[in-house]
Amino acid sequence: MNIPRTSYPRIVIIGGGFAGVALAKKLSKQEVQVVLLDKNNYHTFQPLLYQVSTGGLEPDSIAYPIRKILKDFPNFYFRLANVDKIDTKKNKVRTDIGDLKFDYLVVASGSKTNYFGNSEIEKHSMAMKTIPQSLNLRSLILENFEEALLTSDFNERNALMNFVIVGGGPTGVELAGALAEIKKGILPKDYPDLDTRLAQINIIQSSDCILKGMSEKASAKAEDFLEKLGVHIWKNIRVTNYDGKTVTTNTDLTFESATVVWAAGVKGATIKGLEAEEFITRGNRLLVNDFNQVKGFNHIFAIGDIACMANDEFPNGLPMMAQPAIQQGHQLGDNILKLIEKQPMEPFSYKDKGAMATIGRNKAVVDLKKFKFQGVFAWYVWMFVHLFFLIGFRNRMVVFVNWVYNYIRFDREARLIIRPFKRNHKRS
Amino acid sequence: MNIPRTSYPRIVIIGGGFAGVALAKKLSKQEVQVVLLDKNNYHTFQPLLYQVSTGGLEPDSIAYPIRKILKDFPNFYFRLANVDKIDTKKNKVRTDIGDLKFDYLVVASGSKTNYFGNSEIEKHSMAMKTIPQSLNLRSLILENFEEALLTSDFNERNALMNFVIVGGGPTGVELAGALAEIKKGILPKDYPDLDTRLAQINIIQSSDCILKGMSEKASAKAEDFLEKLGVHIWKNIRVTNYDGKTVTTNTDLTFESATVVWAAGVKGATIKGLEAEEFITRGNRLLVNDFNQVKGFNHIFAIGDIACMANDEFPNGLPMMAQPAIQQGHQLGDNILKLIEKQPMEPFSYKDKGAMATIGRNKAVVDLKKFKFQGVFAWYVWMFVHLFFLIGFRNRMVVFVNWVYNYIRFDREARLIIRPFKRNHKRS
Repeated sequence: MNIPRTSYPRIVIIGGGFAGVALAKKLSKQEVQVVLLDKNNYHTFQPLLYQVSTGGLEPDSIAYPIRKILKDFPNFYFRLANVDKIDTKKNKVRTDIGDLKFDYLVVASGSKTNYFGNSEIEKHSMAMKTIPQSLNLRSLILENFEEALLTSDFNERNALMNFVIVGGGPTGVELAGALAEIKKGILPKDYPDLDTRLAQINIIQSSDCILKGMSEKASAKAEDFLEKLGVHIWKNIRVTNYDGKTVTTNTDLTFESATVVWAAGVKGATIKGLEAEEFITRGNRLLVNDFNQVKGFNHIFAIGDIACMANDEFPNGLPMMAQPAIQQGHQLGDNILKLIEKQPMEPFSYKDKGAMATIGRNKAVVDLKKFKFQGVFAWYVWMFVHLFFLIGFRNRMVVFVNWVYNYIRFDREARLIIRPFKRNHKRS
Repeated sequence: MNIPRTSYPRIVIIGGGFAGVALAKKLSKQEVQVVLLDKNNYHTFQPLLYQVSTGGLEPDSIAYPIRKILKDFPNFYFRLANVDKIDTKKNKVRTDIGDLKFDYLVVASGSKTNYFGNSEIEKHSMAMKTIPQSLNLRSLILENFEEALLTSDFNERNALMNFVIVGGGPTGVELAGALAEIKKGILPKDYPDLDTRLAQINIIQSSDCILKGMSEKASAKAEDFLEKLGVHIWKNIRVTNYDGKTVTTNTDLTFESATVVWAAGVKGATIKGLEAEEFITRGNRLLVNDFNQVKGFNHIFAIGDIACMANDEFPNGLPMMAQPAIQQGHQLGDNILKLIEKQPMEPFSYKDKGAMATIGRNKAVVDLKKFKFQGVFAWYVWMFVHLFFLIGFRNRMVVFVNWVYNYIRFDREARLIIRPFKRNHKRS
């Protein structure tokens, strides 16, 4: 990779998500050379992907060009690359566009969908971790309605309009709420010749409550909101398989469905070279110490979802969410500079800013440290926080315009099949 | 196709472009059954596709769900379908979702890129007639810059940054202007380590002026604007081939380029069953009379780009633009109702509202019947007219926000490679 060597130490960051971007910003005006590698040329605001899947927002408004984030930073280089391997002995990364030496390496490669080894589910279900995946899901949902119009087979039509979301975390809950609003507001107008009562939205949750990471009150209220919207919540049930037609569970319960969204878990997106057992812990994450150093290394770090940093409150590691990623990115920026100057680093301490989820129009749940609240006000807070954290003034404006429009008009206009979804299973 | 037969006559419209939608709107509250067929579930505002290709607008803001256009119309049906054949004997259309009988048929299938039989050019060049094509072009442009960073071969880098636009009509001119602004405003910031002087934008025009359909003054001024923006205009030169690396012409001139956009011509998108010589005329269009009736039929019509209606002013048929399409759609709506009621139809007469093209920031050319003007005011007129004709309040707002932002910030933020472009030729 033709990046000039200067007298500055070179920090290579793998991944331009919340963690990688927070770190890059922190290093922006320092005497270091930074090379950011990502397989996309954009940063994705993952918390709003479900709105892309459901036609509420255009994909371009929740993505931001990485080059633009870095544009005023001297000594910064971005390269569009897949990292194949980390060579910890020779201090270099191997990518599809060549090798790159590093003085310091920060792995911020995030997480990917965890199918727990079930390749049938992986093949037939939809995930919602990236923009292309969300666009595929949007296409599939819309194509299923179009197909439902064509069939005269009741069971077939039923399956085409039966949505199964596996996992009752924030992703599953927010997607279910959005689908319920589509059922109520869009379907009867767009498809007057379809019996929209057939559109069923199911959440299957393996434990006894949804939004497990949040307070009992938030969980109960979210459940209440969802049920009022007509979403079926199936608790204490585990999905065992999905063959493209039938969802089977660990009980007698089965679902005939053409649209299964797998939101039941994520795991660290590890990279070869740091995959040995000594580095990896629960959830396929890289074990790090309080300075985000990967076990056994002084100059190799991991931050964000890929990093497993345990403390008393989170013995299995900090939650895989935006906040720990951003905070670790900031802190590591300071710490790397200290390390370069041979000063002692500061241990990371997580400031839990709470959690929130939106269920639909005027309906959200918010857990702050001191206050927990649900309903309309929580919904406004949710919107404000998401607009605030979105990168870029244009993106904020476009999202804001869409939200105001959708709110006033009970509408979602981005219901376009721009990327035809190729079903990998043929329905009879 | 399971569409109920009622006592109303059934009008089948093939295509939801400007012509098809204008006709549908006209028929909205009449005693007819209307079935609109399109291979996409959205209407595309084609005049702004070049802004999608160049990252100025998100694709979703220039597309509009067809079902939403039809939602308040009783007796309207939309089906997502590819029409394979028209059976003029049995009065039915054959589609990939089944057959459909019609009482009246309106072919509004538009136009497609005309490669004049050159399959090499078709294989290697980019077109810009649809949203997926525009997104592919956006990806290719951005990927080429990323690739240009990686190569140490000067000729290779040169080719990756050398843009060749074949055709100096509105599409070619507007795209060239937008690329020139990217070269000036975005490239130096996004790619500080690239010599952006290498980015060359070429228009190749077979005749002796660009914007041939417009006034001499507009053409000359557009040329002047483009040259000030650094675009090279090559006149009286015809492209003979492009093998994925080299553009050859009917002169000694050749271009090494990784990005060739073919904007040199369109032809009618005919459908089997109406492809015999007796129906087809110049430009692969369906010959129609003043009532838009296809030659030899009383109840089969063609409107928009696919229809060739000649008059004294336009002996080769009306221009393939939005205005004739919209006007024919409106008029045919009235005429079909008259035909049903056995009243005489009104012959179509084209009201030429003029033409316009934008070259860039503060630079446009406008030809109205009585006034012809160029420059800043023309640019405002261009923007106003395009916002006005865009369907949907949300789309207008989102486009407006983007334009204001792009204007103030000299920026284009949708420069995202969301749809990785798979090159069908491998560069060495």
